Amino acid sequence: ANFVEIFPILKAEILKDLPLMDMPKDKIEWIDKLIEINVAGGKMNRGLTVLHSLQLLVEGRTLTRSEIFKANVLGWCVEWLQAFFLVADDIMDQSITRRGQPCWYRQTNPSSSNNSLIGNIAINDSFILESCIYTLIKKYFRNEPYYADVLDIFHETAYQTELGQLLDLTTQPNRGDFSMFTLDTYRRIVKYKTAYYSFYLPVALSMLMAGIVSKPSFDTARDILLPMGEYFQIQDDFLDCYGEPSVIGKIGRDIEENKCSWLICQAILNGTPAQIALLKKHYGLDSKVDVEIVKRIYNEIDIQKIFRQYEDQSYGQLVEKIKLVKIMPQEVFLKLLSRIYKREV
Amino acid sequence: ANFVEIFPILKAEILKDLPLMDMPKDKIEWIDKLIEINVAGGKMNRGLTVLHSLQLLVEGRTLTRSEIFKANVLGWCVEWLQAFFLVADDIMDQSITRRGQPCWYRQTNPSSSNNSLIGNIAINDSFILESCIYTLIKKYFRNEPYYADVLDIFHETAYQTELGQLLDLTTQPNRGDFSMFTLDTYRRIVKYKTAYYSFYLPVALSMLMAGIVSKPSFDTARDILLPMGEYFQIQDDFLDCYGEPSVIGKIGRDIEENKCSWLICQAILNGTPAQIALLKKHYGLDSKVDVEIVKRIYNEIDIQKIFRQYEDQSYGQLVEKIKLVKIMPQEVFLKLLSRIYKREV
Ligand SMILES: [Mg+2]
Ligand SMILES: [Mg+2]
Ligand SMILES: [Mg+2]
Ligand SMILES: [Mg+2]
Ligand SMILES: [Mg+2]
Ligand SMILES: [Mg+2]
Repeated sequence: ANFVEIFPILKAEILKDLPLMDMPKDKIEWIDKLIEINVAGGKMNRGLTVLHSLQLLVEGRTLTRSEIFKANVLGWCVEWLQAFFLVADDIMDQSITRRGQPCWYRQTNPSSSNNSLIGNIAINDSFILESCIYTLIKKYFRNEPYYADVLDIFHETAYQTELGQLLDLTTQPNRGDFSMFTLDTYRRIVKYKTAYYSFYLPVALSMLMAGIVSKPSFDTARDILLPMGEYFQIQDDFLDCYGEPSVIGKIGRDIEENKCSWLICQAILNGTPAQIALLKKHYGLDSKVDVEIVKRIYNEIDIQKIFRQYEDQSYGQLVEKIKLVKIMPQEVFLKLLSRIYKREV
Repeated sequence: ANFVEIFPILKAEILKDLPLMDMPKDKIEWIDKLIEINVAGGKMNRGLTVLHSLQLLVEGRTLTRSEIFKANVLGWCVEWLQAFFLVADDIMDQSITRRGQPCWYRQTNPSSSNNSLIGNIAINDSFILESCIYTLIKKYFRNEPYYADVLDIFHETAYQTELGQLLDLTTQPNRGDFSMFTLDTYRRIVKYKTAYYSFYLPVALSMLMAGIVSKPSFDTARDILLPMGEYFQIQDDFLDCYGEPSVIGKIGRDIEENKCSWLICQAILNGTPAQIALLKKHYGLDSKVDVEIVKRIYNEIDIQKIFRQYEDQSYGQLVEKIKLVKIMPQEVFLKLLSRIYKREV
């Protein structure tokens, strides 16, 4: 069974416990829909990484069917973790759409007779998505020697992501105040809210499955994967402004939403006082005219060139770092890097 | 160190990691306040139960200082779990106050310059409270043979409570619709949203510490503690209407808020068609006059007598059940029951 084929199996495992827990039929359908809409349908890069990485870690040995299945279960648990965070993040950010449909909290409450929305019940739904992770890990890994390590790393990663969210949510200054838009602040937010769960977690899980127990190996992985995650988020910010909407699947809104994006941090670092004054006036407003002015100043500063330079430099530094790795196969990192370098989606 | 004295030690353990994770000072203060306000200051019955129960389980042997400390750590983790749920529950229920002060989501955002409220950032804060549980358990129990069992039971209990919340949140019918106010529905909600975490969890944790591994012991505990939790919640509903506000520390609002309370379920079972018609007209309205009418009908039906009869019957049944227990000391259950029987707070 390949990665996508495993999803319905895992969802069925979750759902089959519910009648034993006395849940009425309509609640089971609720949870079915919750999982279907929020866990499936992403790009699945994070989830796929667990198996890809395990395959490279065992260096040529063919994985058993059971190993492949289990790596993909852990991959789906990473996707479930992301779903937990995205459902809540959309409420906190008051987002409207996600993956081309209304955010979960803005969908119609299936239990209501008067077409009301799910609304804040989505908070509890996000908790349920998180709980599914531990239900699945228990079902498939309870007897593995690394069971507690898998639990520890999910707990730690969740905590890191939550700290990143706290930083993010409390670093949205009043519009026109650029004092918090520094690269230091930016990098700290991104490391915690994105890099740990998106890059370190999937590889660390594959390392546990491969039987790696040495702390230096995990330190090495972290030392490479966190900067890689930062690079990935900077690309995300770049594509929000310069990506092709039909390719990236959404219309960027970072400028409108006054986001602490890498682009605005760079504009502040590289712009003239006059340009920065104009940015302060027009950044963070939900109007086409203001967005156009911000983009015009970005072009004057030639942010695209600054990004291309950053991208090449960042890629070069990552490759240098990876070339020094002796404790585990460099391929694990090189493959991951090659999949994101100069990505357009 | 007694139970209350351990709280600042545990909070300090959480906070001391944060500078190592690169968190700025004001975020550390945020988390300090989050923990202080939401975890401390409850009645602590659930937390105290772990040590009380362990003491009875070891039947006379004096517990070591380390055992006492660890039982209390797990007790505080139960309090932390409750804090996680209450912070989110207050948002979902749109509650105003908790323990005599504004609910966390209604307190002032310490990071904002313009006195705005914490608001939905409290969602992420509830996640952080949950993560603290696993940080603490890892710090104090990582090398215990029952480490994974402790994690499993916290995961399972969280999931059960979330399913209870889902039932609760989707069983609030339109005002005047009594079709869902049945005892069956009531009992299912209460078992999942209250009984597992309030009664089964603290005792099960003490059993793990006592080295109990037999599944029948845990089944026995569940078989007694879930009905005890139901009885506790029925008392809670009774006190909401008939308790002394100065004693219970709040003014009950179940009638105003159209809650699926045990009292309304009983009134529907025992009232005449005319009384039920009047209840439909006046239940769930936030007005003194309507509440007075509901309470008058409760008195006509003599709900207080029905409750006293239920209380004696329920107590009797629990004692009967406990008397049949051979697999572990009956005292564990009798003591817990004696602490809640005929409680007024
Ligand atoms: Mg968002
Ligand atoms: Mg966000
Ligand atoms: Mg983005
Ligand atoms: Mg509530
Ligand atoms: Mg509630
Ligand atoms: Mg109550």
